[in-house]
Amino acid sequence: MNRERLGDRLADLPTDGYLIDASQDDANQLYLSGFTGPDPFLTLYADGEVHVLVGGLEYGRARKEAAADTVERHADYDYEYGGREARNDMYARFVREKGVESVSMPPRGPVGTADALRERGIDVAVDTDDRIREVRAVKTDEEVDAVRDAQRANEAAMRAAEELIAEADVAGEDAPVEGGDASADDGEVEPGTLLYEGEPLTSERVTEEIEVTLLRHGCALDQTIVAGGAQAADPHDRGSGPLRANEAIIVDIFPRSKATKYNADMTRTFCVGEPSETLREWYDLTERALDAALDAVEPGATGEDVHAAACEVYEDAGEPTFRTDPETETGFIHSTGHGVGLDVHESPRLASGGEELEPGHVITVEPGLYDPDVGGVRIEDIAVVTEDGYENLTAYPIEFEV
Amino acid sequence: MNRERLGDRLADLPTDGYLIDASQDDANQLYLSGFTGPDPFLTLYADGEVHVLVGGLEYGRARKEAAADTVERHADYDYEYGGREARNDMYARFVREKGVESVSMPPRGPVGTADALRERGIDVAVDTDDRIREVRAVKTDEEVDAVRDAQRANEAAMRAAEELIAEADVAGEDAPVEGGDASADDGEVEPGTLLYEGEPLTSERVTEEIEVTLLRHGCALDQTIVAGGAQAADPHDRGSGPLRANEAIIVDIFPRSKATKYNADMTRTFCVGEPSETLREWYDLTERALDAALDAVEPGATGEDVHAAACEVYEDAGEPTFRTDPETETGFIHSTGHGVGLDVHESPRLASGGEELEPGHVITVEPGLYDPDVGGVRIEDIAVVTEDGYENLTAYPIEFEV
Repeated sequence: MNRERLGDRLADLPTDGYLIDASQDDANQLYLSGFTGPDPFLTLYADGEVHVLVGGLEYGRARKEAAADTVERHADYDYEYGGREARNDMYARFVREKGVESVSMPPRGPVGTADALRERGIDVAVDTDDRIREVRAVKTDEEVDAVRDAQRANEAAMRAAEELIAEADVAGEDAPVEGGDASADDGEVEPGTLLYEGEPLTSERVTEEIEVTLLRHGCALDQTIVAGGAQAADPHDRGSGPLRANEAIIVDIFPRSKATKYNADMTRTFCVGEPSETLREWYDLTERALDAALDAVEPGATGEDVHAAACEVYEDAGEPTFRTDPETETGFIHSTGHGVGLDVHESPRLASGGEELEPGHVITVEPGLYDPDVGGVRIEDIAVVTEDGYENLTAYPIEFEV
Repeated sequence: MNRERLGDRLADLPTDGYLIDASQDDANQLYLSGFTGPDPFLTLYADGEVHVLVGGLEYGRARKEAAADTVERHADYDYEYGGREARNDMYARFVREKGVESVSMPPRGPVGTADALRERGIDVAVDTDDRIREVRAVKTDEEVDAVRDAQRANEAAMRAAEELIAEADVAGEDAPVEGGDASADDGEVEPGTLLYEGEPLTSERVTEEIEVTLLRHGCALDQTIVAGGAQAADPHDRGSGPLRANEAIIVDIFPRSKATKYNADMTRTFCVGEPSETLREWYDLTERALDAALDAVEPGATGEDVHAAACEVYEDAGEPTFRTDPETETGFIHSTGHGVGLDVHESPRLASGGEELEPGHVITVEPGLYDPDVGGVRIEDIAVVTEDGYENLTAYPIEFEV
């Protein structure tokens, strides 16, 4: 946590304090409290101090772990499990005893707690700016190193995925399937299907290899994208079923370190066999869009500028973007990137309206092209904004045909 | 989703509709919408119908996946990315166009959305009962089967953990460490430390094996507990560092199926070598508490009854519980169990004030004893309440010394 930045950003709060009611699954909570509580707990920022309130089971761990000035437990308020109203009474007392009569809560804070405090005479305002999210966007060197470590795990996982895909056999029109078992010999495998040890190589199999590799490197992920063919044309399709030759296969990995809770994010697109001329052009264009966007990254540039640099490459080549056609369902149909930290998607946004970049912003740059009739291509690097430009944190080759 | 139960439970809502603003990470959202959207989206229940509103990137997938009567996208409301106020205007229009002027939101729904709708003239009430959570608690046969499948993966992972622990060598006082490398030969390994391939066997190493096994079985988990010695005396300590002989090692695994999103949950406690007499007594007591609690499970019994059955075994043996000493930090210091489904902790609670059990409730029963001077012992099975009792979904032996 960057206390100074936090203090600056919260200095002109219209309320006495800032309140978070969430578990460690909420990045604002994790950032402000420093505590990995599995159940929702309260963190109050007031007068430059951080106060945490947890249940008895968490108390010992919270005292050790939390980056807080005070840690209290429910028993300090004579609360045992006594239902909703008693819990809300305790929450109101906890806030008041810190001299706080009004609190801001982040937009996604729980309405149940907000309304309960209001009923008890405490003013609750929504911090529509989500200021702690803004503070989190600028990383300390230690936080950048945490992302860097997660990115090393990411590269190991990408390597495992690329090897599985590159070493796959391809089921032929006539040729018997090598090493195939009964189902493969049955002729149920379509020509062009990638084969691993005689079985169709599926998105699920590659995903499993990626996630096992991440675990072996101290990271976790449950949402890996391995999508080929028409599936790759939907940027949020995680992919399923057999992968095929001559198609683009998008592999998007965004692991989270189990130790630090910081994320990394990287995408590569692979093709076994002969990609179509269109896919080759798309890949070259996307690599140029990546370079153009990265070239635009420097303090003072906005997320919108970086997005524009990527869009221009595509638009000059006649590909639709949201700038030329807000309703397009093909072409470059998402933003150019996003911040990465305790959340895998956080500030700043590299998109229309995207904010000014500052040193310490960790961002991904991920241009891509999509059309169900062609497939999908996306290349994504992760970088940190520096005083005079950026440092690319990604150490993985950009190669289509494997 | 059990539409009939949902309709019954929401029939007497004090509002026109029920609104959820959350991503798939929220179990109520996943249950009501049936859609695995990675970013927050709206689901509105009104007049027995379910309406979903997603961004353009999710539209195709949502139309295929969602268990909704209508699926709309932002473009249907002429919304492109235009910041907060425009988004909130769209949300208000979406609600109003369904003929809805007042909505209930669950207690943990976002206050930002609630207040924005209020500013736009839509009444928002907090559903303090969390009714969808209540509906979710009673499972269909299909949902029970999903838990059963996750539990099979859980048992495979527990087996992998038990084997690692049971097959470990024990570092001796004088004997050189077999197969030890430099660090082990340096005498840095304390006598009694468990060794795997000559290296100290750590909580982290066992956790890795568990989570890799879960992935190989289609499940994920990032919060496994493998805690030995004094660490096991803190029920929420996930454990770290070398494991030791003659100590109790708690292994608590709660995987989630990647395909169905349903969870399982099981705990075993293992000891390599010679447990102390106290640990042996604790283990026997805890096994008796488990049996007593399970015996109390039937429709019409309350969660409080089941909790009482476990407490009585401990109290009769002179061990403290929250019933005999609300402030105790040793003894049986948590509830007896909880519902399991799309959330790993959900209704019903097996605790003081716990609600009446119904057929279809999937619950864990997990008594345990804790004291930093002794260690921790916990045994946890998962079961489904049936018409005339319960069916234990757990197929794993209960054995302490391995």
